[in-house]
Amino acid sequence: MTIKISIDCMGGDHGPSVTIPAAVSFLKREPDAELILVGLEDVIRAELKKQHADAHPRITVQHASEQVTMDDPLEVALRRKKDSSMRVAIEQVKDGKAQACVSAGNTGALMAVSRYVLKTMTGVDRPAICGIMPNQKNGPTYMLDLGANVDCEPHHLHQFAIMGSVLVSAMEKIARPTIGLLNVGTEDIKGNEVVKATSKLLQADHERGALNFHGNVEGNDIFKGTTDIVVCDGFVGNVTLKAVEGVARFFGDTLRTEFKRNLLTMLGALLGGGALKAVKDRFQPSRHNGASLLGLRGLVFKSHGGADAYSYEWAIRRAYDAAKNDVLGHISEMIAELMPRNTDIPEVPGSTI
Amino acid sequence: MTIKISIDCMGGDHGPSVTIPAAVSFLKREPDAELILVGLEDVIRAELKKQHADAHPRITVQHASEQVTMDDPLEVALRRKKDSSMRVAIEQVKDGKAQACVSAGNTGALMAVSRYVLKTMTGVDRPAICGIMPNQKNGPTYMLDLGANVDCEPHHLHQFAIMGSVLVSAMEKIARPTIGLLNVGTEDIKGNEVVKATSKLLQADHERGALNFHGNVEGNDIFKGTTDIVVCDGFVGNVTLKAVEGVARFFGDTLRTEFKRNLLTMLGALLGGGALKAVKDRFQPSRHNGASLLGLRGLVFKSHGGADAYSYEWAIRRAYDAAKNDVLGHISEMIAELMPRNTDIPEVPGSTI
Repeated sequence: MTIKISIDCMGGDHGPSVTIPAAVSFLKREPDAELILVGLEDVIRAELKKQHADAHPRITVQHASEQVTMDDPLEVALRRKKDSSMRVAIEQVKDGKAQACVSAGNTGALMAVSRYVLKTMTGVDRPAICGIMPNQKNGPTYMLDLGANVDCEPHHLHQFAIMGSVLVSAMEKIARPTIGLLNVGTEDIKGNEVVKATSKLLQADHERGALNFHGNVEGNDIFKGTTDIVVCDGFVGNVTLKAVEGVARFFGDTLRTEFKRNLLTMLGALLGGGALKAVKDRFQPSRHNGASLLGLRGLVFKSHGGADAYSYEWAIRRAYDAAKNDVLGHISEMIAELMPRNTDIPEVPGSTI
Repeated sequence: MTIKISIDCMGGDHGPSVTIPAAVSFLKREPDAELILVGLEDVIRAELKKQHADAHPRITVQHASEQVTMDDPLEVALRRKKDSSMRVAIEQVKDGKAQACVSAGNTGALMAVSRYVLKTMTGVDRPAICGIMPNQKNGPTYMLDLGANVDCEPHHLHQFAIMGSVLVSAMEKIARPTIGLLNVGTEDIKGNEVVKATSKLLQADHERGALNFHGNVEGNDIFKGTTDIVVCDGFVGNVTLKAVEGVARFFGDTLRTEFKRNLLTMLGALLGGGALKAVKDRFQPSRHNGASLLGLRGLVFKSHGGADAYSYEWAIRRAYDAAKNDVLGHISEMIAELMPRNTDIPEVPGSTI
């Protein structure tokens, strides 16, 4: 079966100079894949020519005259740039021409346009962003929501857990991925009211064998790899993600500065260069590029804006894997199976107001 | 004026073998300081003898027969171990025998016992934990709350901002420290309902010149050093702190492993050892040890449990500085000045439930 992916070629810091080499390289590895390259047609064709792929039989070019920039307000992305490469790429999914879409554009705009064009899946209240963090077990920790929903109720977090579980099953070939609920401690009595109520919902699913709920996890468990999935609201997820990025940058900058301080340390860096590179690769693994926008009536993957071609190719691969494994169908089934039983949403007394 | 500090000598991973050398060294540097060493008297006296300080004129030993362990449930620390070194050290502050107290014991127990013994300050609804993170400007970023309050309303966050501002003024000698409100974006429209309402309270204080409110900050701003203080609820603060500790450990472990991989990289580590140590020192600066429990009717400082003597001495120094600069009096004044005007606490529609 052919898997078709649409690509917003203009998105990200580097645009076609990254997205198109990644696309061409990806096609070499996956003979059953077809790509729809969306953006300024002449720019795309010129880049394809550079890559000796201007007549590739599994590439279609779809012209889109506009482009969503990193600074565009949501309203502009949503209402004014109706022919943006981002929007047209998503429309390929809506129209059934592609099974998944990849963009390295502005996350907020991508989520807003995806919600507008594709709509939310039946049974899901709010779509979420699921990203991947590296962990000390040398594997990925999937974490959601990373910022789409800043005010969450227990049934929202419950839905995030279901969607994350389906995604990890499909992408990592894990039959029953473990789910951790991000909290300030591991004991049941810990946490705010929303988290405590969510824990009960997940525990009930665990007891009937529907989800593999590990229990509460703490911030450091993300990097220990205690569970395959970490569930949190978008406020906590976004702040944590950015704090972690901030520390990593601090660490990297300090390492560079200190090793350049004198001849001896420079020699140390030269000899230990392989070690320094290995550390960097473990922290920013290219194979972890590609966050999923889950809960929509279509598959959308977000590449890091600064991704290089190698890393962008991993985001395409993730979209391809999700489509090939019918992540959308499985989420839909599992939501239908698990959510109706929870129409009795618990009251949460004395929450954040 | 003499400044008296009580020390829970038994708390922390190392107990008297760390707390007492730190205490003795601190007294050498501060001729106007006196210390009350609390714990098992014979153990303390034996350690003092080792440090040639068994007859130090500015040391008093206060016997306490029990000890709060890291695993003790709150109820045990609160109700059963009434003669714990932690509790007796705090009671020295309550009884006016000491102006501040330092402990490296269990944070939850320290907060609970402190609240019980000292009570909350008039005008403050909830005490908070204020810790220090290193930043790329080579200075400290003060952050609160780090876990005492998992469900916060806007006026709680407002009080945290006031208390943090007074603390930083006193400790860092900054007249008008900048305050950032932790959020998912810097624009005013960003955030959950609690944060948006808090922003309005802080903006009003800023406009009348009472606080120096910078506006919203994101997770990475903690490490950039964008503001002197970062305010958040205890859920977000605790998760962020632990996530950051987790990443730092991941980074450190990976660095060690990679540099040990072969002879060349080992040589690199040997030559670049100074650089590696400098990186570690910038990430875990000993001078940043000592979190403040703010909003109580007494000063309590929490040392890291694993602190060595050098680092523990910094926690004592912080308690001493806070007492010397009358942080308690200043917080009380500023709360009295700013809080009554905000009796009109805004309604927060559609928050986390």
